[in-house]
Amino acid sequence: MPDEKKNVKEITAMDKDFARWYTDIVKKAGLMEYSSVRGCMIIEPYGYAIWENIQKILDKKFKETGHVNVMMPMFIPESLLQKEKNHIEGFAPEVAWVTHGGEEELQERLCVRPTSETLFCDYYSKVIHSWRDLPKLYNQWCSVVRWEKTTRPFLRSCEFLWQEGHTVHENKVEAEQETQKMLDVYANFFKEHLSIPTLRGRKTEKEKFAGAEYTLTIEAMMHDGRALQSGTSHFFGDKFAKAFDIKYQNRENKSAYPFQTSWGMTTRVIGAIIMVHGDDNGLVLPPDIAPLQIVIIPINSKNVAVQNTVNTVYEKLRKNYRVKVDNSEQSPGWKFAEYEMKGVPLRIEIGPRDVENRKCVVVRRDTGEKITNELDNIDSNISVHIDKIKKDMYNKALMRMETMTYEAKNFDDLKETSKKPGFIKTMWCGSTKCEEKVKEETGLTSRCIPLDIYKNIDEHCAICGKKAQAIVYWGKSY
Amino acid sequence: MPDEKKNVKEITAMDKDFARWYTDIVKKAGLMEYSSVRGCMIIEPYGYAIWENIQKILDKKFKETGHVNVMMPMFIPESLLQKEKNHIEGFAPEVAWVTHGGEEELQERLCVRPTSETLFCDYYSKVIHSWRDLPKLYNQWCSVVRWEKTTRPFLRSCEFLWQEGHTVHENKVEAEQETQKMLDVYANFFKEHLSIPTLRGRKTEKEKFAGAEYTLTIEAMMHDGRALQSGTSHFFGDKFAKAFDIKYQNRENKSAYPFQTSWGMTTRVIGAIIMVHGDDNGLVLPPDIAPLQIVIIPINSKNVAVQNTVNTVYEKLRKNYRVKVDNSEQSPGWKFAEYEMKGVPLRIEIGPRDVENRKCVVVRRDTGEKITNELDNIDSNISVHIDKIKKDMYNKALMRMETMTYEAKNFDDLKETSKKPGFIKTMWCGSTKCEEKVKEETGLTSRCIPLDIYKNIDEHCAICGKKAQAIVYWGKSY
Repeated sequence: MPDEKKNVKEITAMDKDFARWYTDIVKKAGLMEYSSVRGCMIIEPYGYAIWENIQKILDKKFKETGHVNVMMPMFIPESLLQKEKNHIEGFAPEVAWVTHGGEEELQERLCVRPTSETLFCDYYSKVIHSWRDLPKLYNQWCSVVRWEKTTRPFLRSCEFLWQEGHTVHENKVEAEQETQKMLDVYANFFKEHLSIPTLRGRKTEKEKFAGAEYTLTIEAMMHDGRALQSGTSHFFGDKFAKAFDIKYQNRENKSAYPFQTSWGMTTRVIGAIIMVHGDDNGLVLPPDIAPLQIVIIPINSKNVAVQNTVNTVYEKLRKNYRVKVDNSEQSPGWKFAEYEMKGVPLRIEIGPRDVENRKCVVVRRDTGEKITNELDNIDSNISVHIDKIKKDMYNKALMRMETMTYEAKNFDDLKETSKKPGFIKTMWCGSTKCEEKVKEETGLTSRCIPLDIYKNIDEHCAICGKKAQAIVYWGKSY
Repeated sequence: MPDEKKNVKEITAMDKDFARWYTDIVKKAGLMEYSSVRGCMIIEPYGYAIWENIQKILDKKFKETGHVNVMMPMFIPESLLQKEKNHIEGFAPEVAWVTHGGEEELQERLCVRPTSETLFCDYYSKVIHSWRDLPKLYNQWCSVVRWEKTTRPFLRSCEFLWQEGHTVHENKVEAEQETQKMLDVYANFFKEHLSIPTLRGRKTEKEKFAGAEYTLTIEAMMHDGRALQSGTSHFFGDKFAKAFDIKYQNRENKSAYPFQTSWGMTTRVIGAIIMVHGDDNGLVLPPDIAPLQIVIIPINSKNVAVQNTVNTVYEKLRKNYRVKVDNSEQSPGWKFAEYEMKGVPLRIEIGPRDVENRKCVVVRRDTGEKITNELDNIDSNISVHIDKIKKDMYNKALMRMETMTYEAKNFDDLKETSKKPGFIKTMWCGSTKCEEKVKEETGLTSRCIPLDIYKNIDEHCAICGKKAQAIVYWGKSY
C-alpha cells in the first residue's frame, strides 16, 4: 500500500487550524510541491490540470470577446520599467534582476517581468500609427515574478502563472467599457464555472494598481471569512500612452494619445477554489474545472458481471465527461477517501447487488448525498447531478458570504464587528486617512467600492463622521 | 489604404537573398516584431496563433501517449545546475543570471532556466521512492533563456517557447523505448501536420545534448538546402539519477537508480515551416496549423446576390474550418496578395457571374492552381482540397530533400560536393577527429546517423579511410 501516507486522517481540521488545513490539502491532493528555489512552487500534474481547465475556459471567453494571444519577452530593461513613475514605484521593490548574460556583465540590468505593461507599451509605440490600427485587444499567458518576502502555495509566490490582457482604444469611453467588460468576464467565470460568488467593485486610491487611473476587482470570501482579490481590471486613461509616447492619427487626422486597459487572473484562483469549497475531507472541485469529474469504483472488482457493468457505464460516460474507473487493489473505503481528498465531484459505486437490480449508487462530493440511480439512464442523470452540484455549491458559498457580511454605522461598531470573520460594509468619506486608521486599528483593508452605488450619498463616514462619498467593503485579506 | 506598406512587392526574392527573404516574411506576415531586449522577440498574434495550433496538436499527442503537464520554477540555483558535470559545462556559458531580488543581493545566484533537467531531477529525488511511483511521464510548456550571441527570429533567440518532456523509468529498455517513441511522435507530427519530411537519426558524440548518453534528432531540409534540427529526444541512462541521487525501491526490494529521458520541440518549428514551404509571395502554411485556413473574397462586394452567397458559403464552412470573409474596401487584387503573404491555404473567390452559374473559384496557395467548384458541394470539396494540399506539400518537400541529398565516397568528393547546397551522406569511422576535420574544411556538421543502419558495415570512412562504423548525414545548419 504505497499510498497509505496519503490517508485523509492526516488532514488538519479546518476549524482547528485553517492555514494548516490549507497546506495539508495542497500537498495531499497532489496540487503542488515546494521547490529548491525560495518562494517558487512546483505545480504538480493534478494542480496543473486544474489550471489547464481554467485556461481553456477563460481563453475561449477572451477570444469570444475579440482578443488574441501574443508573447512578449520575459525581461524588461531597467530604463523601460522606469518610464511610468507610479508603476516603477509600485514594482521596483519586488523584482528579480538579471545582471549577467553568460560570462558577461550586462550594460543595463534586466528585470524579470512582474507584469508587462511596459513591454506592451513599448511595442504599441512602434506599431500603432493610425485609428485603423485600433483597438488592440491582446492577451498573454505566461509566468511572472514578484520577489515576495512571505509566500504561500498559490496565494502568494515569487513566481506564478497568469494571463494579462493589454488593450488600446481610440477613446476613453471604449477603454472604460473594456475595463468593465473584462471584470464581468471574470465575475461570470467565477460564478458559472467555479461556483464562487464575488463582490464586484472599484479599489480605493490606496489599493489600486501602480500606474492605473482606477482598478476594478472581484473579491471572493474564503471559508474563514477572509477576502481573496481574485481578478482585477485596470483603466489606465492615457497615462501610459503619454509616458511611452504612443500616438496615433485619429479620425480627424490629428495626433492623439490612445486609452489603455489591462486585466489579469492568476493561479491564485486555485487557492480560492480550495478555500471556498474545500472541507475536512479535502478538496471539493467545481465540475467544470475538475481534472476528473467522475470516478467509478467497483465494489468487488473480481466479479465479472460487476466489471462488465462498470465498463458499460464507463463507455457511456466518457463521451461527455472526464471519467475513470479505479480497479486498483486498494479497498473501496480507501478509494472513497482518496477521491474525496482529490475533490472529484461524483463517485459511482457498482457492486454485485447493483448489477442484479440494474442500479448503481451515485455519491456527490459536495454534500455526501447518496443517490440510487437506474443504470439505464445514468448518462442523462449525470448531467442533472452536475448542474445541481454547480448550483448548490454556488448557493452555499453565496449564503456564507451574505451571512458573514455585516454593516457598521460608526467606528466603535466597526472595531467591534472586526473581531468576527467576514466582510464589513460601511459608509466612507473617501479619504486615505480614514482608510489607514481602519487598517491600523482593526487590521482590515478596503476590499472595494461597489460599482453601482459609487455616487453621492446622504450619509456619514463610519470612521470620521464627515459626509460619505461611497460605500466600502472591508475585510482581512490573503 | 493604411496597409499599403505591407504590399508583397517589397519581399526580397528567395534566390536573391535567402536570409532577407526570411526576415521579410516574418515581418510582413505579422509573425514577430523585435523587442527592446536584445535577442528576445515579440511573437505577434498571427505567429502566436500558429504556435497555439502546434501546441494543441502536440499536447494531444503527448496526452495520448500517457504524459501529463506540470510547471517547474523558471529559476535554477547555481548549485543545482552544477550537479551534472557535462550538463553545466554545456549550458553555463549561455545562461542569464539573477543576482538581486528586490533591493537585496541573493546569497546564491539563480540562472533563468535554459532547460529544466536539473529542476525535474531535484523534484524527482524528493517524490520517487518505489517502483510504484514509476514511470513519471511529465511535460512542461514554457519559455527558456539561452544567452545567444547572434540571433534570428524563431531560429535562434535568447528566449524561446518550447515544451520539454522529462520522464523517469524503472529500467533502461523502457527509457530507451520512450526516447524512440517521442522522436517518432515528433517525426509523425512533422509529416502529418506540417507536411515536412525529416531525417531521423542519432546525433554523434560531439553533437549530442550536454549530459545525455545519446540524442535522437529529426533534421529537416530548408529551401536553401540547409539543415534545421527540429526536435530532439535524449536518453540519459542513469547519469542524472546518480548525480541527483534519485533512488527507488525496485520490484526486488532493492535500492536502484531509475533511467531518464527528455525531449523538446520549440518555436523554431515556425522557422522550419517558413523555410520549407514559403515562396516569393510569402508564407505557405500547412492547413492543420494555419490560423486561417480559408479566406472568402467577394468580387464586387456591394452586390447583394454576391453577399448572400458569400454568407451562405461562410456559414457552411465555418463549422469545420477556420474561415473568414474579407469585406474590406481594399481591391480584390490587394487582398489576394495579402492572404498569399499570410500563407492562407485556400482562397475562395465569388463574383456576380459565379452566383449566376452556382459556381465559385477556389485557389490553392501552395500551387496557385485555380479550381472551379460547384457552390452546392463546396463543403465536401474543401476537405478533398485540403487533404491534397497536405500531401502535395509533403511530396514537394520530400522530392527536394531527396534531390538535394548526395553521397560522397572519399574526402575529395565530400569537399567538392559540399559546395552544393543540401545533405551529404558518407560512411564514417565514428571518430570526433574526422568530424572536426569535415567541419574545418567544409563547414559541414554531422546532422545524424540514421537509426536503422547504425551497425557494422563493410565499408570505409570517407574522411580517413579506416573501417566505417556508421553512415552519417552532413549538412550546413541553422
